[in-house]
Formats: sequence, C-alpha cells, structure tokens
Amino acid sequence: MPILCRPAVVVPEHTISMGQTLDLARRLHAGHPQLALVLRLIENTGVTKRHLVRPLTETLRHPGFEARNAVYEQEARRRIPEVVRAALRSAEVGSEDIDAIVFVSCTGFLMPSMTAWMINNLGFRWDTRQIPIAQLGCAAGGAAINRASDFCMAYPEANVLIVACEFCSLCYQPTDDGVGSLLSNGLFGDAVAAAVVRGHGGAGIQLERNSSYLVPDTERWISYAVKATGFHFQLDKRVPTTMAMLAPALHTLANSHGWDASALDFYIIHAGGPRILDDLCRILEVEPHAFRHSRATLTEYGNIASAVVLDSLRRLFEEDTLPRGAQGMIAGFGPGITAETCVGTWAPVSNGKSLAHARTMGSAAGVHRPTSTGGPAT
Amino acid sequence: MPILCRPAVVVPEHTISMGQTLDLARRLHAGHPQLALVLRLIENTGVTKRHLVRPLTETLRHPGFEARNAVYEQEARRRIPEVVRAALRSAEVGSEDIDAIVFVSCTGFLMPSMTAWMINNLGFRWDTRQIPIAQLGCAAGGAAINRASDFCMAYPEANVLIVACEFCSLCYQPTDDGVGSLLSNGLFGDAVAAAVVRGHGGAGIQLERNSSYLVPDTERWISYAVKATGFHFQLDKRVPTTMAMLAPALHTLANSHGWDASALDFYIIHAGGPRILDDLCRILEVEPHAFRHSRATLTEYGNIASAVVLDSLRRLFEEDTLPRGAQGMIAGFGPGITAETCVGTWAPVSNGKSLAHARTMGSAAGVHRPTSTGGPAT
Repeated sequence: MPILCRPAVVVPEHTISMGQTLDLARRLHAGHPQLALVLRLIENTGVTKRHLVRPLTETLRHPGFEARNAVYEQEARRRIPEVVRAALRSAEVGSEDIDAIVFVSCTGFLMPSMTAWMINNLGFRWDTRQIPIAQLGCAAGGAAINRASDFCMAYPEANVLIVACEFCSLCYQPTDDGVGSLLSNGLFGDAVAAAVVRGHGGAGIQLERNSSYLVPDTERWISYAVKATGFHFQLDKRVPTTMAMLAPALHTLANSHGWDASALDFYIIHAGGPRILDDLCRILEVEPHAFRHSRATLTEYGNIASAVVLDSLRRLFEEDTLPRGAQGMIAGFGPGITAETCVGTWAPVSNGKSLAHARTMGSAAGVHRPTSTGGPAT
Repeated sequence: MPILCRPAVVVPEHTISMGQTLDLARRLHAGHPQLALVLRLIENTGVTKRHLVRPLTETLRHPGFEARNAVYEQEARRRIPEVVRAALRSAEVGSEDIDAIVFVSCTGFLMPSMTAWMINNLGFRWDTRQIPIAQLGCAAGGAAINRASDFCMAYPEANVLIVACEFCSLCYQPTDDGVGSLLSNGLFGDAVAAAVVRGHGGAGIQLERNSSYLVPDTERWISYAVKATGFHFQLDKRVPTTMAMLAPALHTLANSHGWDASALDFYIIHAGGPRILDDLCRILEVEPHAFRHSRATLTEYGNIASAVVLDSLRRLFEEDTLPRGAQGMIAGFGPGITAETCVGTWAPVSNGKSLAHARTMGSAAGVHRPTSTGGPAT
C-alpha cells in the first residue's frame, strides 16, 4: 500500500501582512463602491501573513504576461531544488529512486514542463515519468497525491515525487476590481511543497482509497480568464457555499472504506478560505480543532493553492501526536468544482524502521491491493 | 492487461493544401532571406493537406490571445462530443463506465479543464477522475496511452477515456518568421482524437509495458515562448537529429520485454516530420512500409501534435491485416525532448467476442500484472 512520506514546504522570503493588505486595498481602491465589504471579507479570511516570491512593490506592478512567466520559471528553478531534496531525504530515497514526478502548478505555464528541467538538473533518471498538471488549480494538491498513489498501485515498487509550485502573486491583476478579485488579492500566497509517495516502505500516511468528485454545473464558479495579461482568477460568490454539495462525496468515500467521515482521527482539508473550513466542520459535525492544520496554513501562508494540503500535512507530521493506525482524510478542492480526496492511515516510523508494512489492512471495506512485486516497467 | 480500443478521429472541415501553404509563404515572406530554404523544407514535409478549425483567411489573422483561446474552447466543445461517442462505441462502453479521462492538449489553455465540461455535458459520472495534461506537447499522445494503461494496472476493472484535442492553427503567430516558425506554419494541423483503454475486456492493442525517456539537455529544442500573444512554438534546427539519441530508449523498452525493437510487427510512431520517420526507420533498420500509418497521418493531416499516434493507430485498426498476437510499439515524441513509448500485442475481436483475455502473456520478460480484481476505489 502506498505511503505518503513527510512533505517539505518552503515559503519565499518576502511577506505581506493582513495590515498591509488592508492598507493597500484602501489606497488602491479608495472610491470602490463595495470597499467596506471587501475590507470585511479580507479581515474575515484570518490570513495574518502571506509570502511572495518578489518584494511587494514589484508584485504590484504588472510587467506583462511574458515577463511574469519568465519570473515564474526563474523563481521555480531557484526554489524547487531545496524542497525536493528535503522531501527525498524525509522519504529516505534518492533522486535516482524516483520513477515518476507529478508536478502541479497553475500559476505559470511552461512547455516543456518543469519536470524536464528537474530531470536535467536534479539527478532524476532519464526514464522518470513526467506527469505535469496545470489545470486542476487548488484541487491539484489532492490530485497529485491520488495519482501518485495510483501509480504505486500499478507499480508497487515505485516511488513518486509530488511537487506543488504555486506563485499566486504572479497572477495578481491590478485592473481586476470585482469583489471576488479584491478578496483573492487578500487571500492567496506563494509556496513550494514536495513529498514522496513510496509504493513500498517508508513512513507517513498509508494511502488506502481515493476518489474524485465534480460538483454538477459549477464549471464557471472558479476559473481562469486567459488574456493577453495572463491568467485572471475568477471567483464566483457562490463558491463558499460549495461544502454542502461536496460533503456527501466525502461521506461516500469514507463509507466505501468502512469508515465514517465524521469520526476520523485527522483531517487535511484544502484551506480555500475560512468559510469552507467553517462549513465543512459544521456539516461533517467535527470539532474545529480537527481542522487546525488547515487553519494554520491559511492563517500563516494564505491560500497557497495546490500546496495547501501538503503544507497542512507537514504540520500534521510535525505535531506528531497521532497513534499508529489513526484514520484520516485528505481533501483538495478546486476548479470544476472538483474535490480530490483520499483516506488513509497513520503509519509512523518506530525504532528507526518503517512500520508501513507491519500493519496489515484487514477492514471489511476490502482495500484491493495489487499483489505483484514487479517494478516499474521501464 | 489493459486494452487500447479503436480510436476515433475527426478533422475539421476547413483545409489548406501544400500548394496554398507554399503560395502563402511566398506571398507573406517575399523578402525573407531564407525563403528558398523555407519553401524546400515545407515541400520536404510531404504534407499534402491539413485541416483547420477556422477558414484559412481567419486562421491567418491574430485576434489576440484571449479571443484565440475563446475560439479554442468553443471549437473544442463543438468537436469533442462526436469523437468521444465514437470512441466509446468502438470500445463497447458507455460514458457511465468511464473511470478516468486523460485529456491532452497543448494548443489552448482552460481552467477548469475540458474534462469538467465533458463530465457536465457528456454523461460521465461525477466521480470520473480528471487527468488534464497540457505541457507534454506532441509526446502527450503517448503519455495519455501510458497513463491510462497505468491507471488500469492500478484498477484492473477500470476504463479510461483518452482525448487529444489539438488546434495547432490557433497557435499560428504571424510575426514569427524564423525558419523553424515558417516550417512549423507548413507542418501542423488540427484534429480531435479519442480512444478508450479498458482494464478488462475490449479488443485492440494489449498494452504490456511502457516507458518514458528524456533526451539529456535538449530542454530548449522544442518549447513554447509564452507571450501576451499566446503560445509561440519554437523549434530548434537540431530537433530532426533527435532520433539517434532516442532510439536506444526504444531498444531498451523492447529488450526489457524480451522483444527486439527492430523486429516488431507494427510501429505507431509520432510523425513530427518526415526526417524523424526517415531517421528512425533507418536507425531501427525496419522497412519504410513499417511506418506507413504515421506517414499517412503526416501526409493527409500534417503533424496533429498529441493526436498523431491516435490517428496512426486508427489507420492500423482500419487496415486490419495483423494476425492476433502481432507485436508492436507506440511512440510519442515531444518537448523535453521526451519520448513516451509502449509495447503491446494485437488482440482483435473474433466471433463477436473480445480475445483480449484469451491470450496469456507468458514471455520471459515477465510482465507484472496486478492480480487484484478490485474496481476503482470510488
């Protein structure tokens, strides 16, 4: 059964505080008819600080899509190696042990993908599979975990590296002044995250079952307008109400595994905004404390898109209070509106050895595991 | 073992002939210092005709990235349903039987991906996995087959729909006049292709082993420059020499399967251009006739990017001369420079029944197949 090892996360050195965000909104949109609403919405996010790849003054200027995308590439090359090395170290694998890289990022666009650069420069094998995903937005964090898990189900000896590289500040569009845009300007932050999913061995979260769910007919609720000025993030005001529509899918997944989505030991939920966490907490009937890692990510880093779930997971690993066998859920939400969710079990290290294989799944839910021991067919 | 069923391909109603392409080059680039070379290169492609989503005069105008991308979305919605329905019919599955959609396209960018629209409008289940890939360019056709195959290895009862939607004409950049750009203007065409990979049952090509290979340090040889005017395709003149560097990876894959890459019964090779096919033919020491399907695609449709391998496969299915058990290779090439390759066996229908399961793989190569019979973990 695949194991998701401890993630590594790095946030850039530049920051913007809630106070600075509010000041900027007041200054840049002084005459905006809904300024009071915007300020209230930003305050309600609870995001005290966000990190930026470029200094604030530079972030506020739009140098054109081409220059922005060049900054994206440059910053990605600069910041990814450290995170990747830390994730490999935590998983106790080398770059030469990685069979596939799932690279998720919706805030810049490169072809070839960063995966090619990584293989050329970070010691990965020339036959490493490249799985770059740019179009799942914030849900891509969950999707990356799920696709990595699937790959290890197909090749039980494989190791998959996940990288989520999100520089949301490079999608700041000074001319967009709808309420949704102004709120987004106070919500999103930059981060790079990575983690390894090991098909065999390793310590962390044993990934046992995953699912995807598209909320019917909500395609336009979260989207990009693609323009000469780059990607313009569009947020419909109905998005915060999505949890009532998504929660049944989380119950379905847990139930299909013989578990109860309202009675799990840990929750790693995409922190899209405070309302999402509040609503899901209420609908699932769990204590607010259960979502503490997602809330901490939101408060300290803002919504870092596909990197949210990996950063919340990092916090779970750092807290390190779960008993072996603790059962939990990871859920990424994003455009579609799509939920990418999985359930798994805490399988920590003990006595310096991985316990990942010491525990045998015997639930009535009957997790189907390929029994082949074949390596990747390379 | 996963079976790749008969692909469906549709090309748009508008066309441009070789003669028209040459006339245009002469007219639009009359004073170009390398016009003679450009004309010769275009003639050498052997592309007699290409299909376009918009009439030629409209194709030549650049209405801006935003308008272009809107055309991409509109044309995709208009042209995908027919191809998808045909692919499902050929695979004898319904849209409700599909567990994942791998959607590959590098000629437009949408978030959410077309997968969300397809699920909303074409009868797919709400829990269908979405795997949109935009950054593998022409190699994405091979990648889509390989990732679909992997998914079915993980979930042996699953069915995966592959869609390759390429409107290369919407990446025409009137101001680019390097030799590589002018050659590309005479090479690429538009098409939509789809196929189903069935984890269980079905008839077609039994997908037995796949691999990926990145040619070291060729990252800049095929790339997009991302600008306010959209994606600018950049082709290095060294690209046609790539086959010598890639061929060993094809041999490695075949050898690891106990096969000889120079002695297979069928070849479906990405028809990036005539030189690629000529060189690979020579290096693998196979008869030119072996690449007839790739050549036919190139001649009749041009390089239709990720859809090339699916169209060449369609021609293989239509020819229908292979004996059961015939062994072959599918190879997609694209930016990276990346090769996405697989080997498989012809497993046709007989007596109205699929023979996919009648043949047991017994090669010494030992294809590792998960023995679980569990369905997708939804």
